[in-house]
Amino acid sequence: MKAAILGVALLAALPAMAQTTQPVVEDFKPSTLNQPGQRYPQVNSQRYARFRIVAPQAQSVRVSLGLGGRGGTILAKADDGSWIGTTAGPLDEGFHYYHLTVDGGTFNDPGALNFYGSVRWESGIEIPARDQDFYALKDVPHGRVQQVLFPSKSTNTSRRAFVYTPPDYDKDQTKRYPVLYLQHGWGEDETAWSNQGRANLIMDNLIAEGKTKPFLIVMTYGMTNDTRPGGLASFNIGPFQTVLVDELIPYIDANFRTLSDQPHRAMAGLSMGGMETKSITLKNLDKFSRIGLFSGGTISMNDVNNTPSFKEKVKLVFVSYGSREIGGARGGGRGGRGGMGGDPRANADALKQARINSVFYVSPDTAHEFQSWRRSLREFAPLLFRD
Amino acid sequence: MKAAILGVALLAALPAMAQTTQPVVEDFKPSTLNQPGQRYPQVNSQRYARFRIVAPQAQSVRVSLGLGGRGGTILAKADDGSWIGTTAGPLDEGFHYYHLTVDGGTFNDPGALNFYGSVRWESGIEIPARDQDFYALKDVPHGRVQQVLFPSKSTNTSRRAFVYTPPDYDKDQTKRYPVLYLQHGWGEDETAWSNQGRANLIMDNLIAEGKTKPFLIVMTYGMTNDTRPGGLASFNIGPFQTVLVDELIPYIDANFRTLSDQPHRAMAGLSMGGMETKSITLKNLDKFSRIGLFSGGTISMNDVNNTPSFKEKVKLVFVSYGSREIGGARGGGRGGRGGMGGDPRANADALKQARINSVFYVSPDTAHEFQSWRRSLREFAPLLFRD
Repeated sequence: MKAAILGVALLAALPAMAQTTQPVVEDFKPSTLNQPGQRYPQVNSQRYARFRIVAPQAQSVRVSLGLGGRGGTILAKADDGSWIGTTAGPLDEGFHYYHLTVDGGTFNDPGALNFYGSVRWESGIEIPARDQDFYALKDVPHGRVQQVLFPSKSTNTSRRAFVYTPPDYDKDQTKRYPVLYLQHGWGEDETAWSNQGRANLIMDNLIAEGKTKPFLIVMTYGMTNDTRPGGLASFNIGPFQTVLVDELIPYIDANFRTLSDQPHRAMAGLSMGGMETKSITLKNLDKFSRIGLFSGGTISMNDVNNTPSFKEKVKLVFVSYGSREIGGARGGGRGGRGGMGGDPRANADALKQARINSVFYVSPDTAHEFQSWRRSLREFAPLLFRD
Repeated sequence: MKAAILGVALLAALPAMAQTTQPVVEDFKPSTLNQPGQRYPQVNSQRYARFRIVAPQAQSVRVSLGLGGRGGTILAKADDGSWIGTTAGPLDEGFHYYHLTVDGGTFNDPGALNFYGSVRWESGIEIPARDQDFYALKDVPHGRVQQVLFPSKSTNTSRRAFVYTPPDYDKDQTKRYPVLYLQHGWGEDETAWSNQGRANLIMDNLIAEGKTKPFLIVMTYGMTNDTRPGGLASFNIGPFQTVLVDELIPYIDANFRTLSDQPHRAMAGLSMGGMETKSITLKNLDKFSRIGLFSGGTISMNDVNNTPSFKEKVKLVFVSYGSREIGGARGGGRGGRGGMGGDPRANADALKQARINSVFYVSPDTAHEFQSWRRSLREFAPLLFRD
């Protein structure tokens, strides 16, 4: 399992790139994730990104984004002393982490907002997507994202979680809601699903369209045992399981108007968070009835057969990947991968044939990145708590 | 007023420094605001800060913090290719913004967390303070910080606010609470009072000690008309007053269990936020009964006499400064400043003599910086809503 997590995590650094070059269309606009008033980075209609960094005395400036593992985008010095460069090809739609290398040092782009990933606050850029409407800030009723500090005896501190409450949560003080526990990936934290993932806006929009039942989403930090870079090598699910199952769930059920029985509790996660979800839910099927793994492993018939009462207790198994992570119609992907615990589509089909409610989703033209996971949440949420 | 705001804002870049040098004590520890696992920046028991930046091919690395307007701290290249430097003297206790200049470009310290100030996300460092216990994360009941997105017709968008709700808010669903509207300073945003100011922890601790009545704090963005650097020159209170008074207050009263009458509503702000507070409250005394100006102007008898019903309607005027901003027993300060609208202590005394509930507070050994404002909130909160 350790190797599997690592294998998946590393892919995050390798967004797929088109190999052909085409004339660059000069319709670049500032990224929507720029800091206030900042003109760069920019994105054009071909999904190329352009970067501009002011560092007149620098010897070299490079952007980690643009050519996958092959050195990123190298900026060139312009007449005005700034450094400018454009990716050699289009980026995938959606959100991307990146950073700069300036004279051999790692820095963020001062033009862009920061997002926690890779165990550091990275720069972020947003490539407009054909389907971006589903996570846009729209004129609909908005839920809240509530920061709570909950006591954790096992880690001897107050820990932070964010709780999404739907728009009607504060209207009817008698209504109770199901809860989804939603985990980030390796190197990220409890801010990821709101900031990068826009989970709150996805829910607001789905609810406004009547596509999903309203429920709470609880997001907390899933790397309790080690926050240091490289800590994954010693990752152990035990400490986080204690925090989640023994501390956070009772706190949420005591402090929010939840439906606190097993049929009304789900867990999902992306990448490492999917691995955590699988590990924790299969050991705690008295507490969870719905399972979502977004680019984070699969559930096979072996798992089903090795887990007592699986068929009676599990009401939904949702597994998703970006098309570039797997083989498939629109994927430029890598085919079957050992880190997934077997072919995810075949596993999903096998569960379906065993009359388990199994759903498999592939995000078109995306890789191991947040656009796959935003779409996964959009597909997953409407399937939850329908009975 | 424009010139006054600007004058105060500029001081934020000039933390006072001791002029004498002393042997540096080698007990440096990582700042509590470092990114996970990062060893630098560090702070020693003398309140000196030490910075270490890895940029092997750089020509020069400078830190904006350390010598006020005189060039900051210049780092020197060490044998291992990193750049290291220590401030030439102690920094004030508390929180400080800073950034790097690497080869002529402005970047953040990759070791430190980021905080929004100066119309950009800056690096932050925390100098341990003698009184840091009052804003520490302790094992007490914690309130929440709730992100709300409220509709704003005047700006044609959904705007963000953070609402602190005290620990007992979700226990007794019938209880209603007074509200403090609390504003950030120039170049900051609605995240400042929670992130830099630790307003939620200050309130949690005061409430746990029985020192203040519980109330809500609402924090939103106070620069509605211009987010560009330099926008202050064209600052106009009108658009923000519309957002606050006509849009946010009704939203909060409709969506939270507030006491929505004038006696139970206060407004306060730091620096530019103090100027906004004065301007908005004096025009809307049917809505506000308590006023707090933290390093952001004063209220004179002229103001009182020019504001109808001031004496009947205003139940508290709280004015505070850092000692280094003004003359005084422990201040190394600049004496009376035109930007304050007269001598703040004399103005406070005059109000008191006119039988207005006027409180003047000076934060010891601090300047125009967040430690002054954390302390101001600690002093201000217990005075609110006592009758």
